[in-house]
Amino acid sequence: MDFVAIVMGSKSDYKVMDECVEILKKFDVSYEVVIASAHRSPNRTKEYVKQAEEKGAKVFIAAAGMAAHLAGAVSAMTTKPVIGVPLKGGALDGLDSLLSTVQMPSGVPVATVALGKAGAINSAYLAMQILALSNAELEGKLKEDRVMKAKNVELDSADIEVIL
Amino acid sequence: MDFVAIVMGSKSDYKVMDECVEILKKFDVSYEVVIASAHRSPNRTKEYVKQAEEKGAKVFIAAAGMAAHLAGAVSAMTTKPVIGVPLKGGALDGLDSLLSTVQMPSGVPVATVALGKAGAINSAYLAMQILALSNAELEGKLKEDRVMKAKNVELDSADIEVIL
Amino acid sequence: MDFVAIVMGSKSDYKVMDECVEILKKFDVSYEVVIASAHRSPNRTKEYVKQAEEKGAKVFIAAAGMAAHLAGAVSAMTTKPVIGVPLKGGALDGLDSLLSTVQMPSGVPVATVALGKAGAINSAYLAMQILALSNAELEGKLKEDRVMKAKNVELDSADIEVIL
Amino acid sequence: MDFVAIVMGSKSDYKVMDECVEILKKFDVSYEVVIASAHRSPNRTKEYVKQAEEKGAKVFIAAAGMAAHLAGAVSAMTTKPVIGVPLKGGALDGLDSLLSTVQMPSGVPVATVALGKAGAINSAYLAMQILALSNAELEGKLKEDRVMKAKNVELDSADIEVIL
Amino acid sequence: MDFVAIVMGSKSDYKVMDECVEILKKFDVSYEVVIASAHRSPNRTKEYVKQAEEKGAKVFIAAAGMAAHLAGAVSAMTTKPVIGVPLKGGALDGLDSLLSTVQMPSGVPVATVALGKAGAINSAYLAMQILALSNAELEGKLKEDRVMKAKNVELDSADIEVIL
Amino acid sequence: MDFVAIVMGSKSDYKVMDECVEILKKFDVSYEVVIASAHRSPNRTKEYVKQAEEKGAKVFIAAAGMAAHLAGAVSAMTTKPVIGVPLKGGALDGLDSLLSTVQMPSGVPVATVALGKAGAINSAYLAMQILALSNAELEGKLKEDRVMKAKNVELDSADIEVIL
Amino acid sequence: MDFVAIVMGSKSDYKVMDECVEILKKFDVSYEVVIASAHRSPNRTKEYVKQAEEKGAKVFIAAAGMAAHLAGAVSAMTTKPVIGVPLKGGALDGLDSLLSTVQMPSGVPVATVALGKAGAINSAYLAMQILALSNAELEGKLKEDRVMKAKNVELDSADIEVIL
Amino acid sequence: MDFVAIVMGSKSDYKVMDECVEILKKFDVSYEVVIASAHRSPNRTKEYVKQAEEKGAKVFIAAAGMAAHLAGAVSAMTTKPVIGVPLKGGALDGLDSLLSTVQMPSGVPVATVALGKAGAINSAYLAMQILALSNAELEGKLKEDRVMKAKNVELDSADIEVIL
Repeated sequence: MDFVAIVMGSKSDYKVMDECVEILKKFDVSYEVVIASAHRSPNRTKEYVKQAEEKGAKVFIAAAGMAAHLAGAVSAMTTKPVIGVPLKGGALDGLDSLLSTVQMPSGVPVATVALGKAGAINSAYLAMQILALSNAELEGKLKEDRVMKAKNVELDSADIEVIL
Repeated sequence: MDFVAIVMGSKSDYKVMDECVEILKKFDVSYEVVIASAHRSPNRTKEYVKQAEEKGAKVFIAAAGMAAHLAGAVSAMTTKPVIGVPLKGGALDGLDSLLSTVQMPSGVPVATVALGKAGAINSAYLAMQILALSNAELEGKLKEDRVMKAKNVELDSADIEVIL
Repeated sequence: MDFVAIVMGSKSDYKVMDECVEILKKFDVSYEVVIASAHRSPNRTKEYVKQAEEKGAKVFIAAAGMAAHLAGAVSAMTTKPVIGVPLKGGALDGLDSLLSTVQMPSGVPVATVALGKAGAINSAYLAMQILALSNAELEGKLKEDRVMKAKNVELDSADIEVIL
Repeated sequence: MDFVAIVMGSKSDYKVMDECVEILKKFDVSYEVVIASAHRSPNRTKEYVKQAEEKGAKVFIAAAGMAAHLAGAVSAMTTKPVIGVPLKGGALDGLDSLLSTVQMPSGVPVATVALGKAGAINSAYLAMQILALSNAELEGKLKEDRVMKAKNVELDSADIEVIL
Repeated sequence: MDFVAIVMGSKSDYKVMDECVEILKKFDVSYEVVIASAHRSPNRTKEYVKQAEEKGAKVFIAAAGMAAHLAGAVSAMTTKPVIGVPLKGGALDGLDSLLSTVQMPSGVPVATVALGKAGAINSAYLAMQILALSNAELEGKLKEDRVMKAKNVELDSADIEVIL
Repeated sequence: MDFVAIVMGSKSDYKVMDECVEILKKFDVSYEVVIASAHRSPNRTKEYVKQAEEKGAKVFIAAAGMAAHLAGAVSAMTTKPVIGVPLKGGALDGLDSLLSTVQMPSGVPVATVALGKAGAINSAYLAMQILALSNAELEGKLKEDRVMKAKNVELDSADIEVIL
Repeated sequence: MDFVAIVMGSKSDYKVMDECVEILKKFDVSYEVVIASAHRSPNRTKEYVKQAEEKGAKVFIAAAGMAAHLAGAVSAMTTKPVIGVPLKGGALDGLDSLLSTVQMPSGVPVATVALGKAGAINSAYLAMQILALSNAELEGKLKEDRVMKAKNVELDSADIEVIL
Repeated sequence: MDFVAIVMGSKSDYKVMDECVEILKKFDVSYEVVIASAHRSPNRTKEYVKQAEEKGAKVFIAAAGMAAHLAGAVSAMTTKPVIGVPLKGGALDGLDSLLSTVQMPSGVPVATVALGKAGAINSAYLAMQILALSNAELEGKLKEDRVMKAKNVELDSADIEVIL
């Protein structure tokens, strides 16, 4: 079974990453969610990646803050696409996790998305865009979603619009 | 025919992005390369994305510097995965293009990779990881490449290694 | 009819940009306000710019946060002056939107003003300074406003001033 | 006579700002160029702004590096539009001049463009976009320039393009 | 009469700069406080600096936020020492005002102190250190203050100290 | 008697550094805690370092904010390992204290840990890792702690885990 | 046998890290040097850490650039002290590797030293300070080195000194 | 005898600080120059400050790079005004030394000037502005210098000026 494997570095990250889960649910995409830390439980992380891949994980999403190594650590263990969500911690306004996630060396990429909630949501969208390459139904839903989003812009605009 | 569509904002970007092309060639992955600017030729950019998608582009790679809007502009026009390569320009050491590429709003993701050459190379790897989800041969090559890279680390180490 | 066309990327931006609107009202300058996103509704953005220009828009003001491409996207579609207002989002304290707005490539400028409220207000002033080049009455009002502002500094000072 | 008044903080800035001058020449737009420092010659700066305005300056361009106060100082002395070009100095890669130029307080805007050469060029374009509001010939030239730029993207692309 | 002339850019700056005033009061040092903006009231600023100098101002303290040009503008108008206090505004966490204050060009220095409250307090201390060069009583007080501060460290430590 | 000597620059730092103390208590490691400022009480700092070393301090932990010189000042006075904890102050989100602590010149190192609470906790762990090199019991406890931390990751995960 | 285990992420890092090796040689401290990448050879890294620890490694030094995860990855696999040396890569002037190395989460510290050469040298000094806790001869050498360094300052000063 | 005491952290700093010395020479101001490091020779630094003050030093100038503690260390030992010159080192483009110099805690100020050469020159000017408070001849020279600088701006301008 094809699914998205979501890994996050600590329980507190769930407050942001539940936005990712909600999007996947809304689009009926299968997913797993686990906590596994690159630093506090490196073996668990490695084993989870291996098991998830065997069970059918097509895309990994890894979210972490500070020296955010989780996405890089997952990427080092698989050749499946790995999406990294940098989270804001208590200092430096997220610059630490963004640079730690995106600046990967040649040959081991992490597909980095925006900091925090916008990134959590976009990690779900990016994962679905990848799955949709071999899932026409999902691709259809993504296209509808774009149409809806454009409509919502119009509706939002109507509330405040001033046209001469 | 499945292929990777590479778009870059100006001719000078090719000096960095040829690293991306070389990797795709080495792995026998089909690709297109065009220059199209989000700002100087927005219509061309839009038309290329549409044509490329119709011809079979599965993944887009967009590379630009400064206020690097190209990847975001491409992402706005397709639901295919879009990989953004931020390039260093003449100031701020690339921080401008990195933030302009990665900080996309909800619903329109860009899969951002590292700044400059490492990012150019990793955009190719990430594109291939995505294609490999439905191409077992390519997946095999990516796994071999990882084995090779690990071996090269050993060989490099041998040259300077000091073991007691 | 000459007017200022204000575009913002999302409804939440209105909380800051109403400061811009208030200034234009106070000076009796005609304006339009719409929401149009560079990423979620690129066609709407393009069409609005075209229509607004045909109806007499002389200056565009575009406000957005994060990877703030809206002003650049508007600038790519018109040769009218485009003023960009970078807005603070949830991370990096606005550095992302500032760099995304100001670092435009040669030939497609964005007249960038300060982050947030000060920028919202100054986008109105800059637009009026441009319109005033062919509107002596408006120029007169801008000069009076400067005199008032200088007087207000004196009044504010009087409240706390200590002079020997 | 309508013209663009270009002020720069020191002689060494001319190496970058000659790009601005070249663009104005190419489009047959009248201009003045002077050196006047906000810090070393504040009176000269003030007098030049006054004289230039009386002689017909419609737009000011001010270029400076480091704690780049020149554009702000010019803006404080006129209600004409003032374009600020932040230049790179010996440290911090231009972040100092960018922030010093753009972060102006309410009521006294500076239309800030990109750092360095791109900004020098775009200051000329932005000035011309403003002048073109009451100069149909110039507006025509700016539109042709955009068409040319889009064509040049195509020509550049042709040199390296790979299309399947 | 010798005194310290304190200038701040807006009324809201007083919330921070009252710390500076309190220190000067505590040490019985004469001072003046005025609001004068480099951008909204450049003439007032210039006139105040001239008058203050004639009346006996020995040191200037200038406090401002954002593109903090006030200290530089004061320094351009006098050869008396000018102390700059960068203040935090609504964005970028004060980096804008720090760089705008400190990065002055050759020949026109600003003696920059820390951001915000610590800087407000230290501007008073630095001004007094300068005045104390020709005021032995004040120098005595500054030395006592240092002894007191060192004692306070001991007292603070006593509250929480753990010694084996 | 072997112990860890904890020095902090001001009383307010204790709110963060009590996390360090709690960890050392939990592992039954002896420690001293004093306040001593590099700037307000340099002699006290020097004397404390000397006395602590004579009494058996094996590792120093120094915590400070802003221009955080305390750890560097301690390192200059001893050849024992010195751990620096950068603390967040009122501006720049801690970047000032991080750079002031870590960028030490050749020959006088400071072992810098993360900003704020995470750093306070890790300073205790790093100190214990150093002491454990000659304390097998402590090393055993540190290994157990790692096992516990990995288990806690599993327990945390169980609360939110979704496995297909 | 006690020794320092030096790990670096790629061969090019050796150009900087040979400074570390030279210092250890000069002080007759045993060491091993290997290349092992957190991303390209995670298993090799893990195995090396385990073997080195069994053979008597007391301190690890890990040097890497960009998203510098190597020190964190080593720290996750051992409770021995781990020193991280952030290296400058092709962009962002080293800020990426510094933040990726130092911002470790609670319980898994990395003792971070300065960027580049100064950090390479200080990693050797910090490692020796740790070893010297149970090696009086080495401690003596470190104290002599400090005396020498202070003397060298005097000698350097003599060359340029101007004393009235 | 009144003089300026210049302290720098290492011999290589002299390449920048000779600009400071040249200015003082040109204005016939007495000075001393020594190398003394806050970290490698803290006792020497302390003793020099004490001796210099006894011999008549009125102002201290301290120049250092990286975690630039020298100015802060000097300020902790005297109540004379201390001017800090942050120097660029091998990384972070000088941001480290700037923040380490300027962000001093309450009660122990450092009068910070610009990074590098501009700062070296301005440290001399600021020192002279302070000395000139009780030296009318020097004040006269500083005023002449300003007149000269304004004239030089005019002369520089003449070379490139374009006036309509």
